Amino acid sequence: MKRIAIDMDEVVADAHLRFAEWYTRDYGTQFTPEQLHAHTFEDLIDPVHRGISKKYVFHDDFFKDLAVIPGCKEVIKDLHEKYEIFFTTAAMEFPNSLLPKLAWLGEHFPYISWTNIVFCGDKSIINADYLIDDNVKHFKRFIGQGILFTAAHNHHVEWDVRVNNWQEIRAMLL
Amino acid sequence: MKRIAIDMDEVVADAHLRFAEWYTRDYGTQFTPEQLHAHTFEDLIDPVHRGISKKYVFHDDFFKDLAVIPGCKEVIKDLHEKYEIFFTTAAMEFPNSLLPKLAWLGEHFPYISWTNIVFCGDKSIINADYLIDDNVKHFKRFIGQGILFTAAHNHHVEWDVRVNNWQEIRAMLL
Repeated sequence: MKRIAIDMDEVVADAHLRFAEWYTRDYGTQFTPEQLHAHTFEDLIDPVHRGISKKYVFHDDFFKDLAVIPGCKEVIKDLHEKYEIFFTTAAMEFPNSLLPKLAWLGEHFPYISWTNIVFCGDKSIINADYLIDDNVKHFKRFIGQGILFTAAHNHHVEWDVRVNNWQEIRAMLL
Repeated sequence: MKRIAIDMDEVVADAHLRFAEWYTRDYGTQFTPEQLHAHTFEDLIDPVHRGISKKYVFHDDFFKDLAVIPGCKEVIKDLHEKYEIFFTTAAMEFPNSLLPKLAWLGEHFPYISWTNIVFCGDKSIINADYLIDDNVKHFKRFIGQGILFTAAHNHHVEWDVRVNNWQEIRAMLL
């Protein structure tokens, strides 16, 4: 059975939206879905607030109850019939994310065992056939095929295998 | 550069000793180093307390300030010159262990980056040349060479590559 490793932030959990929500809460500025799709958070905000994402991301509540990326629950449920599924997230950078991420996965993917959850940093340590991730840096030394999941920050990044949404993952892998 | 994955409990951190310390605290029974070397904790204690390790291991303080297994600091420091070192621990089973384990590694191995720390469950997800672990179950589907580190619970386990202490790891890998 082939194995798929799946990143969390911007692939199944919408951290980008959380940045925007907190900025709206703190400064009133509203963002349209089109803006959020096209631009990174730091590009959208008032330049006087540049760097605020660093403050937000280390807050204890940042990773709690993140919105689910559309389509991932249905597609991963079906992938799980034909592949070994592991969630592999570079959580070590944010110790505040460890417990919220574990709780989030338990809530949204209760059929994925704790044995198949990986909190790491350098993803070249992952032994899988595919890695679905929004960050190409993890593909450079990855043993399998990296699949770039489109996110606001990677529109202009070059990578040979890219998907724009979970329906495209279904078409590619099922 | 070849890569070594190193387990934590009973390989670099002495959880076995913590069980004994807490039992002594709670019931007064003392254990000699020889007893601790030869027997599992559950085999040493009064049968009426059987199962108490399950209660201890989920306590918030269990993984805090565990003793360091003799020799590992010196040998890992030297291994780090010639190999990529990753710590790979099946921490997901014990969510209470995540933050204490991260703090413990930061204290005792400050030169190992967060990028090289992995909290997982099923270690077949680890892509490394060697895995030093006290549990052979992790070797069955491991991509590299499993090296069994002797612990009280594995004296009678069959595995072709076994080390009894960190000096033997030095002799094997350096």
